[in-house]
Amino acid sequence: MTRAADRVAAVTGYRFSDESLLELALTHRSAGSRRHNERLEFLGDALLNFLVADRLYALRTNDDEGDLSRLRASLVRGVTLAEIAAEHDLGAWLNLGAGELRSGGHRRRSTLADALEALLGAIYLDGGLEPARAVVERLFAERLAALPDATSLKDPKTRLQEWLQARGHPLPHYELIGTSGEEHAQQFTVRCRLERPPVACTGEGSGRRRAEQAAALAVLEVLEAPGG
Amino acid sequence: MTRAADRVAAVTGYRFSDESLLELALTHRSAGSRRHNERLEFLGDALLNFLVADRLYALRTNDDEGDLSRLRASLVRGVTLAEIAAEHDLGAWLNLGAGELRSGGHRRRSTLADALEALLGAIYLDGGLEPARAVVERLFAERLAALPDATSLKDPKTRLQEWLQARGHPLPHYELIGTSGEEHAQQFTVRCRLERPPVACTGEGSGRRRAEQAAALAVLEVLEAPGG
Repeated sequence: MTRAADRVAAVTGYRFSDESLLELALTHRSAGSRRHNERLEFLGDALLNFLVADRLYALRTNDDEGDLSRLRASLVRGVTLAEIAAEHDLGAWLNLGAGELRSGGHRRRSTLADALEALLGAIYLDGGLEPARAVVERLFAERLAALPDATSLKDPKTRLQEWLQARGHPLPHYELIGTSGEEHAQQFTVRCRLERPPVACTGEGSGRRRAEQAAALAVLEVLEAPGG
Repeated sequence: MTRAADRVAAVTGYRFSDESLLELALTHRSAGSRRHNERLEFLGDALLNFLVADRLYALRTNDDEGDLSRLRASLVRGVTLAEIAAEHDLGAWLNLGAGELRSGGHRRRSTLADALEALLGAIYLDGGLEPARAVVERLFAERLAALPDATSLKDPKTRLQEWLQARGHPLPHYELIGTSGEEHAQQFTVRCRLERPPVACTGEGSGRRRAEQAAALAVLEVLEAPGG
């Protein structure tokens, strides 16, 4: 474990007192051990959600709770965690079963994301909240510094509604105008129509709500077009 | 604020250094103030999820992460939080708008649950993690001591699958056997059928998955019946 411990210390700035916690965090269910990292992942997921919420609360004093939720979701979703784990080559230090290893498990997004959460949970158990907070700050530093404008994370229907409300215009009408395809692979087509300004666009999607979002996005693109 | 501060101190065992944080936690959006408790609720929700996860991790060493998730969900869902808030008469101390007050807002479940989360967030900001942890331990003491068996929180389809797998039996078959009602209020009927033991039951619900759960529950009741 010492090489993994050295590597984790180099990446996180944290050195474990109890290396068995580190080993547990890096042990995937496929390794066949009775003990693996899924309980630590449960703890680490909750810890990460809280630490990111705390950071965003302090950082984004003008954002409402919906904006804060969306910003947090963009930071802690699986694909972001997997990216961070991959940037630091965490996959190379995982204990995986032979079959999982052959099928590329050490590069699998969900495995990497789960291991990163488990590692944070292990650091908290080993050292307490403040060391875990310092590691989160370090691993998420670039992404916290480059957080998007909260508005751009809203879904198109919400953005369109807010655009209209800010101008005192009526809300949009959504109308299902068609479906196509087999029962299990249906495509929906929805029209989004405004009374003021008079704009209407259609959108398609694999569900009615997705089609509505696509239609709202098309309308927003008309409204926000230069000179539009 | 002093009476509210005294009351909150009596209930939680925590006395605020900065009473403006307490006031913010007790201020509902309807009060018309530019600042209200929704951002604190975002923080407190994340904090509560983490503290309960941490407690369950230590308390339930034999439960897997799925069990831990279900136990946590049962503790932190809105209806449980509203019960705790109501037990301590938190509603009486909320700052609500006149309309909200007339319509019984101080007894509304979501308002109570949100205010309790906001209060926990405020305690954390005022005093740090350990005071917030102590308050959670105190408010949830009875419920933590009386946690259900993790199995009883699983959904019927999962419980049925585990019952069959533990006995080496084949998995159940679910079959949609009918729908009724208007498009927006459809009822689904599903049959759940086992090969071994030969049991089949139907279930109904407002969605296909709900109907499957109802059918699985009916089968479980047959399997678990005394002498069955």
